Amino acid sequence: MTTLQDCRALDAQDPLAPLRGHFSLPDGVIYLDGNSLGVLPKAAAARVADVVTREWGTDLIRSWNTASWFDLPQRLGNQLAPFIGAGKDEVVCTDSTSVNLYKVLSAALNIAREDSPARNRVVSERSNFPTDLYIAEGLCKERGLELVLVEPEEIAAALTADVAVLMLTHVNYRTGAMHDMAGITAAAHAAGILTVWDLAHSAGAVPVDLNGAGADFSIGCGYKYLNGGPGAPAFAWVHPRHANRFWQPLSGWWGHAAPFQFTPDYRPAPGITRYLCGTQPIISLSALQCGLDVFDAATPLGGMAALRAKSLALTDLFIALVEERCAGHGLGLATPRAHAQRGSQVCLTRDEGQGLNGQGSGAYAIVQALIARGVIGDFRKGDGGQGPHKDILRFGFTPLYLGYEDVWNAVEHLRQVLDTGEWRRPEFNQIHAVT
Amino acid sequence: MTTLQDCRALDAQDPLAPLRGHFSLPDGVIYLDGNSLGVLPKAAAARVADVVTREWGTDLIRSWNTASWFDLPQRLGNQLAPFIGAGKDEVVCTDSTSVNLYKVLSAALNIAREDSPARNRVVSERSNFPTDLYIAEGLCKERGLELVLVEPEEIAAALTADVAVLMLTHVNYRTGAMHDMAGITAAAHAAGILTVWDLAHSAGAVPVDLNGAGADFSIGCGYKYLNGGPGAPAFAWVHPRHANRFWQPLSGWWGHAAPFQFTPDYRPAPGITRYLCGTQPIISLSALQCGLDVFDAATPLGGMAALRAKSLALTDLFIALVEERCAGHGLGLATPRAHAQRGSQVCLTRDEGQGLNGQGSGAYAIVQALIARGVIGDFRKGDGGQGPHKDILRFGFTPLYLGYEDVWNAVEHLRQVLDTGEWRRPEFNQIHAVT
Repeated sequence: MTTLQDCRALDAQDPLAPLRGHFSLPDGVIYLDGNSLGVLPKAAAARVADVVTREWGTDLIRSWNTASWFDLPQRLGNQLAPFIGAGKDEVVCTDSTSVNLYKVLSAALNIAREDSPARNRVVSERSNFPTDLYIAEGLCKERGLELVLVEPEEIAAALTADVAVLMLTHVNYRTGAMHDMAGITAAAHAAGILTVWDLAHSAGAVPVDLNGAGADFSIGCGYKYLNGGPGAPAFAWVHPRHANRFWQPLSGWWGHAAPFQFTPDYRPAPGITRYLCGTQPIISLSALQCGLDVFDAATPLGGMAALRAKSLALTDLFIALVEERCAGHGLGLATPRAHAQRGSQVCLTRDEGQGLNGQGSGAYAIVQALIARGVIGDFRKGDGGQGPHKDILRFGFTPLYLGYEDVWNAVEHLRQVLDTGEWRRPEFNQIHAVT
Repeated sequence: MTTLQDCRALDAQDPLAPLRGHFSLPDGVIYLDGNSLGVLPKAAAARVADVVTREWGTDLIRSWNTASWFDLPQRLGNQLAPFIGAGKDEVVCTDSTSVNLYKVLSAALNIAREDSPARNRVVSERSNFPTDLYIAEGLCKERGLELVLVEPEEIAAALTADVAVLMLTHVNYRTGAMHDMAGITAAAHAAGILTVWDLAHSAGAVPVDLNGAGADFSIGCGYKYLNGGPGAPAFAWVHPRHANRFWQPLSGWWGHAAPFQFTPDYRPAPGITRYLCGTQPIISLSALQCGLDVFDAATPLGGMAALRAKSLALTDLFIALVEERCAGHGLGLATPRAHAQRGSQVCLTRDEGQGLNGQGSGAYAIVQALIARGVIGDFRKGDGGQGPHKDILRFGFTPLYLGYEDVWNAVEHLRQVLDTGEWRRPEFNQIHAVT
């Protein structure tokens, strides 16, 4: 049995503990939702204020030159690159995850179908993040292709000769289950299939090696584990072997080879720059830089490897403490126990029929009761007993700013919420539009 | 002849003069580039700081509910709507101009070709803003359609039975020439053609009446005359008669009918909300709100009609003073003299062969010399004598914060730069990457 004293001892020995000082965390909050919206880097307030008052207010259009606004997407991409196993000039930070997915999936389909015109399927996972499926559905409909959705264990069998692209999210948003990117990419390539990897719950959360895995295309989110701020611009990566083969359909002026020549015809810039489209939100992009700066600060402390070791220790501890201290309350574990299959989150389930008055699972109310105590996680609705997906209590663990005592305290709050029946209070059972 | 004293008298009588107090303008600057990047509303620094430190830093994911982040694109759209002749729930502020053009042009093509499958052309203007042409080029290539580019005087004749969509920018970025939106839309409709209007240089600059003109689709820019900040999110409008007919191809989760049900299949939200895609950059969006707030403050002072009257007075004055005081320096006028054909900018030309050592036009160096004096306009390159487009000195006039004395002083600086030959200095003749 791990004790509070054990947790404090682990914090005292933690070489990554100083990183917490880079963040502004509200008092009284244990934040287990960095997989939804990362916290505020302390440097961001001053950085954003400087962009607003000096770069915009005083320097105005001169900042295109003096503050290098124009290449900010590439500079941030280069700063992010080492943390996802990408090389220099292979990443841009721009637009939203959904828009970037449209770009790379379009390009992947163009390449795959130029090489093998008979390939007319896109394969993805049924429980992939919905916006990924919506974008793929739209593209497939537009081009007369078929979108095939499978369960994780069916992926290998789905890699048939009629498949053009396999599109997966590396770490599942509902369960925290992580795919073997290198193994699946190799299997896809062996079947002549290109891969598109969504790193929304991976970038900054787990070690990623896009080039090592030989992946083809990737996109990801700036406002989750990268702590870039609400709705921060996302990113896109394309393997150099594909980068110059196609232009993507959102062919705007920031992706032009000579944007300031204002020629009427489109000529794509070489490499990843052609994955830019329109003018980017400079203030939000600048905040993202502060999130990336903390990963630079983590590098001399061991970087992503050290962060991963701590993340696994935190999630192992959380699972163990929940099982020890919250037993008998109908909680299950949706996240894999095997380290190789786990992202940086733990998702608990609760069966239907255990909610207030026997309605629903009560998971939503438990999450609300925890939030009222300052333990912020989130709730993801299941299929209400109609299918395999149970209601989920989702907890993200960001080793940049969380410690072992935080985990202890979070579980203690959960235990009290369950043991006392506090979650049954009416105010915790009122559903809000957005959670 | 207008005198400096006349200008001061005009400022003293100007009912819009108090609006200047809403902006933070750098000392010693006469800013004639609000058509490129609008200036900083004073309220924006505090608003952005509050979004960063409180909404993001303290309230974290709770701000999705407490700060209504989720409907910010619609709220800003409703705030903008009256200034472009749009109705409630017809506009969203989101993504970039280029991305929004892709959405509305895609939808317009779907609708036009569903109704008339044989229509296989998109008509636009050869000197439309390049990114508009790039997006149209990409879409046409993807769908096997033809993009036909014409001169302004050829538009009427180009509205033939094989045209699906006419895509125009209302006010030309190079010349400041303004199209007759109502007249051209009526002519297009008479020929069975849908219209897409880019309001990049119109929204906040000239009165626009999208519903009055019966236009079909429109997009525009947040960071020019709307003063939303560098790279501020753009906007999209769709006439209600079209809004529910098609989903646009960037079918992300923010455009879903029930985004928090996380269903695997896409179901577009009713109306303009389906033109949203991914999560938006909240910090940059919030700054845009401060730009729109100033237009609300202008409403009791006469609103867009009063702003338009002052804009025409300022541009009339600039043209008159340049012609009176800068004669003999080879300057021409690219902007129409007729009020009905003029946006809120004045573009001067200079012939080739008048530059340093007889090379080029010297327009770039004149603009640089003006900038060094604090008179900020910009330069747009012509075709170097190869075609009809001369080099352009471009000056935008924003009646929200410019006065008549500013115009006098700007012309006086221009006169001195030309009369003294100051623009010939080497430092003004070195070309930067971005101007």
